[in-house]
Amino acid sequence: MDLAERLLKGDKRAAARLITMVENNDKDAIDVLSTIYKHTGKAKVVGITGPPGAGKSTLTDKLVKRLRQENKTVGIIAVDPTSPFTGGSILGDRIRMSDLNTDPGVFIRSMGTRGHLGGLSKATLGAVKILDAYGLDYILIETVGVGQSEVDIVKAADTVVMVMVPGLGDDIQAIKAGIMEIGDVFIINKADREGADRTKTEIQMMLDFNHGDWRPPVTKVVAIKNEGIEELVENLQEHENYLERTGKGIERRISNSEMEILHLTQQSLMSKVLDNNKNKNEIRSFAEKVAKRETDPYTISNKIIEQIIMENKDSVK
Amino acid sequence: MDLAERLLKGDKRAAARLITMVENNDKDAIDVLSTIYKHTGKAKVVGITGPPGAGKSTLTDKLVKRLRQENKTVGIIAVDPTSPFTGGSILGDRIRMSDLNTDPGVFIRSMGTRGHLGGLSKATLGAVKILDAYGLDYILIETVGVGQSEVDIVKAADTVVMVMVPGLGDDIQAIKAGIMEIGDVFIINKADREGADRTKTEIQMMLDFNHGDWRPPVTKVVAIKNEGIEELVENLQEHENYLERTGKGIERRISNSEMEILHLTQQSLMSKVLDNNKNKNEIRSFAEKVAKRETDPYTISNKIIEQIIMENKDSVK
Repeated sequence: MDLAERLLKGDKRAAARLITMVENNDKDAIDVLSTIYKHTGKAKVVGITGPPGAGKSTLTDKLVKRLRQENKTVGIIAVDPTSPFTGGSILGDRIRMSDLNTDPGVFIRSMGTRGHLGGLSKATLGAVKILDAYGLDYILIETVGVGQSEVDIVKAADTVVMVMVPGLGDDIQAIKAGIMEIGDVFIINKADREGADRTKTEIQMMLDFNHGDWRPPVTKVVAIKNEGIEELVENLQEHENYLERTGKGIERRISNSEMEILHLTQQSLMSKVLDNNKNKNEIRSFAEKVAKRETDPYTISNKIIEQIIMENKDSVK
Repeated sequence: MDLAERLLKGDKRAAARLITMVENNDKDAIDVLSTIYKHTGKAKVVGITGPPGAGKSTLTDKLVKRLRQENKTVGIIAVDPTSPFTGGSILGDRIRMSDLNTDPGVFIRSMGTRGHLGGLSKATLGAVKILDAYGLDYILIETVGVGQSEVDIVKAADTVVMVMVPGLGDDIQAIKAGIMEIGDVFIINKADREGADRTKTEIQMMLDFNHGDWRPPVTKVVAIKNEGIEELVENLQEHENYLERTGKGIERRISNSEMEILHLTQQSLMSKVLDNNKNKNEIRSFAEKVAKRETDPYTISNKIIEQIIMENKDSVK
């Protein structure tokens, strides 16, 4: 039985193996993804993001336990893009220590950055599809950080939970500008700390400028004490109902697919640039010339693109 | 006199105009960049990054004032990638309110994300080159966030200052994994808060695993009270001496050039995919088919790449 069949029959090891293959940019895995794609789209995909220190892992942990009470199966993809070199195993280790790890209805996977330039989003989106085809009810994508790549990744979800925390200081202004636009459900975690009500008011004020027909709820939570998790689950359900009722769910999946197509295209194009040693060495020697100011990177990048087109034009029918 | 000449003669408005043109992905600006490239490489480029709430803006402010006492001219590029839609003006507004703004030896510019997929790094790297050719002594790139794109941007610097702060909670583990590898100089800002010494010890312990020949210094700072800024300036100077003494400065500029070439190549390739309405509409209708599971994004992205190659093969000699 091949990997695709095993996956569709609910073989956990096939799922894990495929995710590793996607991470390694393995061609066979892409073929499998292409084959199983029609079996995806059933899972509810929830992104969980927010600034460092917001307690996203604890919140995820409690949310999963709550979903397990209803016998829902859950996948957790913990994305750690902060470590481009080590592959971000630390966040993963923290999650592996969770007691959820022994629950057969839970699939936990941490993913770090392998290589640059779109590799992480390709791997993460691939992992979501694999876990979807594997048959999980919920897939949670947890990402630390508030940067561009993280926003791109978390936007692949049906619902984005934005986890805030009291006392972020001035930067809350900058963060809020970014998150207001992508958060569907807001959580103020560690709400037993000073300043929780002020943070809540500030977020509410920002949301007053949001003129969409979905008003994101803002809920105070103390994840570590399991307080407010019930409301979070209700909020998720309400957002799901809203997506279905208004047809916004389909619209969102179309723009997510568009984003996915663009990410994949970008990644494949860059693979053509980088996936052979001749090109890599050439780029290195171009870089030396640029660093010495014998040429400039704009001229060089045009040259590289011309070369890629020449190299590939005969393989296109 | 054309823009390139005006820039090289130190015309501030020409610099501002060119940066805007680069942000808008204007072809003429790229030609100018290509022309002036040989006049760049003189400025010292310092990246300042760290998690939200670390007080990077205040630190930058104090550092610039200190550099001005030595009559150094300084450019500040404040990158705000947290707001992919609004263009991140909030961080910019905060900086524009600074009293530095009236100092003719200081050039302040905030840059938000215009479009996705590499646009910000292209614009930021372009702005650095413009300010370099304009003739500034120092260029500081300040970025909020700890994600992949921010790491890529800040790595374009000769020296990266990592601003930490006491009390980041559990996420400090995940952050540290990423920053240890890119920080050349560590600052613990708000060091009058509880836990500063513990944070310092934690960072020192992480750095013990770093076997390079440069041991990043870790300095406690209270930027708002101007405490520790002198040490920061000394640390920057020491790192600069190290880069010169060991030849690591050249090595670094070569790998930065390599990264710049790759970013530009990626951006230009994606422009070919997206820079006409026919293609955009087609991608939209592909996305609809993908969302309905009539096809899959892997097949579609291959098709798009074949199309790009066909469309461009005749323009290549």
